Amino acid sequence: MDKHDRISPAVIRRLPKYYRYLGELTKMGINKTSSRELSEMTGFSASQIRQDLNNFGGFGQQGFGYDVENLRNEIAKILGLDNKYKIIIVGAGNIGQAIANYTGFYEADYEVVALFDKNPKLIGMSIRNAMIMDSDDLEDFLEKEKIDIAVICTPKSVSQQVAEQLVRCGIHAIWNFAPKDLKMPENVHVENVHLNESLFSLTYYYNRMNKEKSKNE
Amino acid sequence: MDKHDRISPAVIRRLPKYYRYLGELTKMGINKTSSRELSEMTGFSASQIRQDLNNFGGFGQQGFGYDVENLRNEIAKILGLDNKYKIIIVGAGNIGQAIANYTGFYEADYEVVALFDKNPKLIGMSIRNAMIMDSDDLEDFLEKEKIDIAVICTPKSVSQQVAEQLVRCGIHAIWNFAPKDLKMPENVHVENVHLNESLFSLTYYYNRMNKEKSKNE
Repeated sequence: MDKHDRISPAVIRRLPKYYRYLGELTKMGINKTSSRELSEMTGFSASQIRQDLNNFGGFGQQGFGYDVENLRNEIAKILGLDNKYKIIIVGAGNIGQAIANYTGFYEADYEVVALFDKNPKLIGMSIRNAMIMDSDDLEDFLEKEKIDIAVICTPKSVSQQVAEQLVRCGIHAIWNFAPKDLKMPENVHVENVHLNESLFSLTYYYNRMNKEKSKNE
Repeated sequence: MDKHDRISPAVIRRLPKYYRYLGELTKMGINKTSSRELSEMTGFSASQIRQDLNNFGGFGQQGFGYDVENLRNEIAKILGLDNKYKIIIVGAGNIGQAIANYTGFYEADYEVVALFDKNPKLIGMSIRNAMIMDSDDLEDFLEKEKIDIAVICTPKSVSQQVAEQLVRCGIHAIWNFAPKDLKMPENVHVENVHLNESLFSLTYYYNRMNKEKSKNE
């Protein structure tokens, strides 16, 4: 056990935000920042920000604030963004293809090396430098190639089965876009992007606002 | 003020999960469920589930559990999934097109009526029944059509500006895929899907697991 093991998921979830905002400060040519300034940018309280960053050794100097580039680099190291990651995508439908095409996260060194699908019309196509391969070849592929992260973009009817296959082949990090939670052993980490749930929450608030408005009219 | 105004965002965020799991029970032909069963499915505690559902009047009968279909319908009503929503997508790149093509949320009545982009190569194309229109025509379009929800899939460099334009044209619900938080007036609700942040969190846990593993070897 080292100190990182005690850090709560909520803190880990805020780090990418700090990373992003520090990047924006860098782009604006700003070298120094404070927990107060970060608070205004992120919406988290200044004391929460100080506490979060203290988890990793602080980086700031009392009264001098934070060195933007240094803090950003440290957060990148904590998240592991200074390494390279090989990714495969299982399910080369709309979402799978969009992820393969997405350039938004290429600032870190993620490489999509292959996609897998059952659809013969898709097999053989390339997206950027990644080929869409036959799902039947997934296990052979994983035996030969060291893959860090697998993305599941299949229909939910097969997502659990695909996840189990991935885990059997040594995958421990799954980015899951299928709208169903995966039941996985403890040594597998899953991050879910459930688009439905996000849209349904938005729908709820949209309706609340409309009810408010009609009451006030 | 009615009772819904006091419901925390955390509760609202769990409702789509209940909705999804109740749908799975229905598909399995199960008519009755309990907070304990829902707890096993969702990973939330049984007492949290009872508390959440009590916010909306309970629905369950002590000792008899919940009627699956009734509970699901009630949650659908709370979320507003029994209504129809017209959606536009601004930014018809990979993510925008994937959302327009996405069939996962058609169980509720969301209709993508148009996409908007600046790219002349995309303008005029259709995705399902929605045309990609010129961004310059966005304001005219919004003047004529009543749109409920706008999805922002533009580069982050223009997302704030696009959001402000949407709000000026009467939009109050924004689903934001651009990796930058929007500064919006209080009467606008934004749901963010920041794919980067989700992938970065996953990367963190992947690295933690690897460090654990190499320590144990």
